[in-house]
Amino acid sequence: MLELGSGMAQGDDDDVPLILTWDEDANSGLLSDGALERVDENGTGDCDGVGDASVPKPVPVHSRAQISNRQSWEINYQEAAIYLQEGENNDKFFTHPRNPQALNAYLFAHNHLFYLMELLTGVLLMMLSLSEAPAVPSLRLDVYVHATLELLALVMVAFELCMKLRWLGFHTFIRHKRTMVKTSVLLIQFIEAIVILVRQTSHLRVTRALRPIFLVDCRYCGAVRRNLRQIFQSLPPFIDILLLLFFFMVIFAILGFCLFSPNSNDPYFNTLENSIVSLFVLLTTANFPDVMMPAYSRNRWSCVFFIIYLSIELYFIMNLLLAVVFDTFNGVEKMKFKSLLLHKRSAIDHAFHLLVTRQRPDGISLKQFDGLMRFYKPRMCARDRFLTYKALNQSDTPALCLEDFYKFYEVIGLTWKARQSREHWFDDFSHTMFLIFKGIYILVKSKAFQYAMYVVVAVNGIWILVETNMLNGGLRSGTVARSYIVFLTIYGVEMLLKITGLGPMAYFSSGWNLFDFLVTVIAFLGLIATAFNMEPFYFIVILRLLQLLRLFKIKQRFRNVLDTMFELFPRMASLGLTLIIFYYSFAIVGMEFFADVIYPNCCNTSTVADAYRQVNITIGNDTVLQDGYYYLNNFNNILSSFVTLFELTVVNNWYITMEGVTSQTSHWSRLYFMTFYIVTMDELQSEEQGDA
Amino acid sequence: MLELGSGMAQGDDDDVPLILTWDEDANSGLLSDGALERVDENGTGDCDGVGDASVPKPVPVHSRAQISNRQSWEINYQEAAIYLQEGENNDKFFTHPRNPQALNAYLFAHNHLFYLMELLTGVLLMMLSLSEAPAVPSLRLDVYVHATLELLALVMVAFELCMKLRWLGFHTFIRHKRTMVKTSVLLIQFIEAIVILVRQTSHLRVTRALRPIFLVDCRYCGAVRRNLRQIFQSLPPFIDILLLLFFFMVIFAILGFCLFSPNSNDPYFNTLENSIVSLFVLLTTANFPDVMMPAYSRNRWSCVFFIIYLSIELYFIMNLLLAVVFDTFNGVEKMKFKSLLLHKRSAIDHAFHLLVTRQRPDGISLKQFDGLMRFYKPRMCARDRFLTYKALNQSDTPALCLEDFYKFYEVIGLTWKARQSREHWFDDFSHTMFLIFKGIYILVKSKAFQYAMYVVVAVNGIWILVETNMLNGGLRSGTVARSYIVFLTIYGVEMLLKITGLGPMAYFSSGWNLFDFLVTVIAFLGLIATAFNMEPFYFIVILRLLQLLRLFKIKQRFRNVLDTMFELFPRMASLGLTLIIFYYSFAIVGMEFFADVIYPNCCNTSTVADAYRQVNITIGNDTVLQDGYYYLNNFNNILSSFVTLFELTVVNNWYITMEGVTSQTSHWSRLYFMTFYIVTMDELQSEEQGDA
Repeated sequence: MLELGSGMAQGDDDDVPLILTWDEDANSGLLSDGALERVDENGTGDCDGVGDASVPKPVPVHSRAQISNRQSWEINYQEAAIYLQEGENNDKFFTHPRNPQALNAYLFAHNHLFYLMELLTGVLLMMLSLSEAPAVPSLRLDVYVHATLELLALVMVAFELCMKLRWLGFHTFIRHKRTMVKTSVLLIQFIEAIVILVRQTSHLRVTRALRPIFLVDCRYCGAVRRNLRQIFQSLPPFIDILLLLFFFMVIFAILGFCLFSPNSNDPYFNTLENSIVSLFVLLTTANFPDVMMPAYSRNRWSCVFFIIYLSIELYFIMNLLLAVVFDTFNGVEKMKFKSLLLHKRSAIDHAFHLLVTRQRPDGISLKQFDGLMRFYKPRMCARDRFLTYKALNQSDTPALCLEDFYKFYEVIGLTWKARQSREHWFDDFSHTMFLIFKGIYILVKSKAFQYAMYVVVAVNGIWILVETNMLNGGLRSGTVARSYIVFLTIYGVEMLLKITGLGPMAYFSSGWNLFDFLVTVIAFLGLIATAFNMEPFYFIVILRLLQLLRLFKIKQRFRNVLDTMFELFPRMASLGLTLIIFYYSFAIVGMEFFADVIYPNCCNTSTVADAYRQVNITIGNDTVLQDGYYYLNNFNNILSSFVTLFELTVVNNWYITMEGVTSQTSHWSRLYFMTFYIVTMDELQSEEQGDA
Repeated sequence: MLELGSGMAQGDDDDVPLILTWDEDANSGLLSDGALERVDENGTGDCDGVGDASVPKPVPVHSRAQISNRQSWEINYQEAAIYLQEGENNDKFFTHPRNPQALNAYLFAHNHLFYLMELLTGVLLMMLSLSEAPAVPSLRLDVYVHATLELLALVMVAFELCMKLRWLGFHTFIRHKRTMVKTSVLLIQFIEAIVILVRQTSHLRVTRALRPIFLVDCRYCGAVRRNLRQIFQSLPPFIDILLLLFFFMVIFAILGFCLFSPNSNDPYFNTLENSIVSLFVLLTTANFPDVMMPAYSRNRWSCVFFIIYLSIELYFIMNLLLAVVFDTFNGVEKMKFKSLLLHKRSAIDHAFHLLVTRQRPDGISLKQFDGLMRFYKPRMCARDRFLTYKALNQSDTPALCLEDFYKFYEVIGLTWKARQSREHWFDDFSHTMFLIFKGIYILVKSKAFQYAMYVVVAVNGIWILVETNMLNGGLRSGTVARSYIVFLTIYGVEMLLKITGLGPMAYFSSGWNLFDFLVTVIAFLGLIATAFNMEPFYFIVILRLLQLLRLFKIKQRFRNVLDTMFELFPRMASLGLTLIIFYYSFAIVGMEFFADVIYPNCCNTSTVADAYRQVNITIGNDTVLQDGYYYLNNFNNILSSFVTLFELTVVNNWYITMEGVTSQTSHWSRLYFMTFYIVTMDELQSEEQGDA
């Protein structure tokens, strides 16, 4: 490593870069070289000739009066690193910094501290709705407190935008669509926050639904932005098929109204509006046999109407919808992949031309590459930088040609590890010890041991099942079942044997072993806590059940499934976040319009009165509380709203909430619920497509 | 055509076939030739050399003492045609007829009359359950009547099987799995039918659930057989993932029981069994917010349990299930496609070697091809046979080589049509007439006319909507709205203009025009019927709405959707039939065990008592019938069972039926409903995969 370092130190001032960035000042002696070189720049890159046409000229904007050669190299390294980062993050090049002030602003706005600030501001703004009226009772804040907090957060956002303005320049700033939207939302929020501070009361603030924009815009939410873009892109064909769906729905609604409205016992088809609403809900199957029953009890053949409707709408058009969304989704993915690849290539082109020397314009030397990597990945050690260079340099020439450099993004993801020469971790031990450890190693590696453990786990599972079943009466909290201690001891012994046999390094490198270890250790801690009567009872129940997950190792397919589960976790998380952003917007709108309209016994005039009823009935001598519970699904604060929206997402019985709210407000409320259904349907379908 | 015929008639006795079928008799003079030729058979087919290795020797089994050359050709043609048919239907070659008796039986069993008989027998057997106890009231038959009918149908099936036995021979017969299953089912059914005739009462006859086998086995139900095979093939991975699903379900059930059983208001988790059942139903989301409500009202954070459960089970593992089924399905489809292709090639190989002459062993002449086609497609005219030959003969040599003949199945599907030379159908008319028709033609073809019609249809649609909405009070039956007559007149005029402008042939060749024509004509007939006070009111409502389907022609995507709809119709029909077969089996089992257990106010001890209640309540002075209607979802006869099973397929509220039946019978009844859910889930998922 020392050799590498010294090798790079020498001759740092000998080579002259081909392109000098930020050399707009025309009276520099070095500039003429740069300008000259830039003219025959198109003649370089003869390594492959590919991509030459697509190389836009790097923008030379730096005023560099008396900068040494070494300094000019440093600037080139930095700019090349920025290009490569832009290529990686799929940032457009027109946002590339154009002068030293812009570079400073760029560097200020592109580090994890700044990103974290962005994220926290976004989260804080969203969290405010916990404390704003209608607030979660325990978190309620005075108006001036939460308005001040909001102003503070908005000032932070404004500061971030100012940095962006400095970096991008005014002209580029107003061309960047997302930033402009953010700015206008910021302005509105500012005005509203000030109005609230002045009036000291909250007014109808539906614009709060736009707050997620601040979160979505932050660097760490790139996956969420991608998801949102996908959803919006799959929208047009989705809406087309939806229109078809609604068209058939209206036709069937008219028919249903004509067929079933003479039946006075049928509340679902007595008006055309009810007829349409019933069939919309039937699309979701949420009211299924019920909506048919009054007609069915009159005439058994009326079921044909419903069967045909469901066959056409649910089993045919809905599947078509899925297929269409899938098609669009695939097309969009392909396009995106292509453009991303091209963008990366062009970023590499840019960087390449900043790194080659006048003397050797068709290759990057190790020194230049090293200089680049110090900016691109400051944490990377010199050894890894050298190895990366070697991995890239496939033709084994002294310099890296453009064709080799195109593999930059693939190779940069590799990690380097020294090869282990020893077979067992205990090879260095004394002979007796070696034999003991070797014995343990063989035992632990044997199939018999493995299957014995599976049997133990299976017995444990059945034991828990039987024990729980016999527990039917009451739960003995406090005392820990003896079986639990027995099984835990077995798991502990297994864990120790494995650690000693395989060696700690090998043991912990397997995800499954890590899982075993954590579960067992935490279970022991839980046991100790119980001994001190701290009684973390549910905790232990959960831990006992977690042990059963080991059973999955038995079958290859199960292991694959669980592995897939862990692999898909980041994607699921980003999708979950996307869903939460939708929830947030809908929750704000819901709270503004439907807060406190739902309460026990509120909806006695509607068809779903039973679900909202809370009455004591006397049966014989007992007074029994008859409770429909649905009044709990309300929009009284943001947490309740989230739960209510989750219930609407699951779809089943969602119309009870809709009808309850509608009966307390106006018929237009249905629009809110129907829109929510369509939006989540689109989002969940895109999600499914993404998984498949 | 005459030339063709005469050309083929001459020289019918000159050529000697390369292979003589059915020549097991060793003392024939011709046989030695055949045997000789068969030896160097492997040297033929030098046209391409492909497939030579895979050509199994055709089985020569015919005793042919003194058959003329012409007769021997006829036999060869027939056998080649049989090979090609076997290739087309994907019949295995080991069922190929091996001697004249077998051939007679084969021909007897392979024509539409026989197929129709098979189909009718199968349908009759299935229809019997309409009349057997528990019967549909209006179709009830005495025990001896329906038992006699059944015996009759079974005798028919036995006769069909005898024909098959004669054709296949005993050895092949017992090797054919499907036929063996059919035979054993037949035997059981026979015994049971006789037992019923003797005892004069029906006993518990769950075996009736096997009746669909007779229907599925018939020739016309090939698509259903394929579907069933697909479903069974996707079963193993499906069951694996299902196990995973159930594993998590049990873990959550234990946890839920521990968490929520202390709450006495919570009927969903009070025992471990209820806990498991609740979570199984929750998999289908059918009890969703309700199952959460008692816990949620106690502690708001308990919603986390349900959200995590649904996220893991419903949104993760269920999607995985879909992906796994999709994967298997794709693999199976690919394999099937490949083996089908190979089977067809080998059928063509067989046929080819039967059609070549000793003189020219590497090609089929037109005469031989014509002879084949007379057996393969007796309805094809000589012109088409000639054209097919020409289309196959791409190398334009006098004979058809094997490589060309491999395209047989592609080319045979083509239809031939003389090219129309005239531009308009009215070109032959006199000049004045021509100008008039030409004017109409231009009008009809103009965009303006088309869009004017769309406007009319749209206005018609809005009109119907508004009119129906204003109708809210009562329906005026009898009088026909004047608007209807106006619109119908416009449609009639449009139709006449189009027919005269485009000519009847061109007009009716478009599916959309045909649709327009039928709807308009039927609407006119309906109008006339109304004039005579026959009052087909609903009929007219439906027709008015059907007119609106024209609007779909506006947008390309809509037209595509409807076209897809029509194209997919055969597939949907076969899937529907498959579903009905499952329904039938489950309906029989349901009727045997659950007939007459459900009636109004039956299930007062269960948690779903409300849904089965039918009581009069007095509110003030009014007596109101409170009706839960769910007692209508019963298994009292096969039609009711089908409707009940359809409701279970739609899944929503299926647990009400399950709990109702369970409360009247035993806990084991749940197995029936859960199995049904899993089977239909599998079947509907395979269906979706097939559509996509």
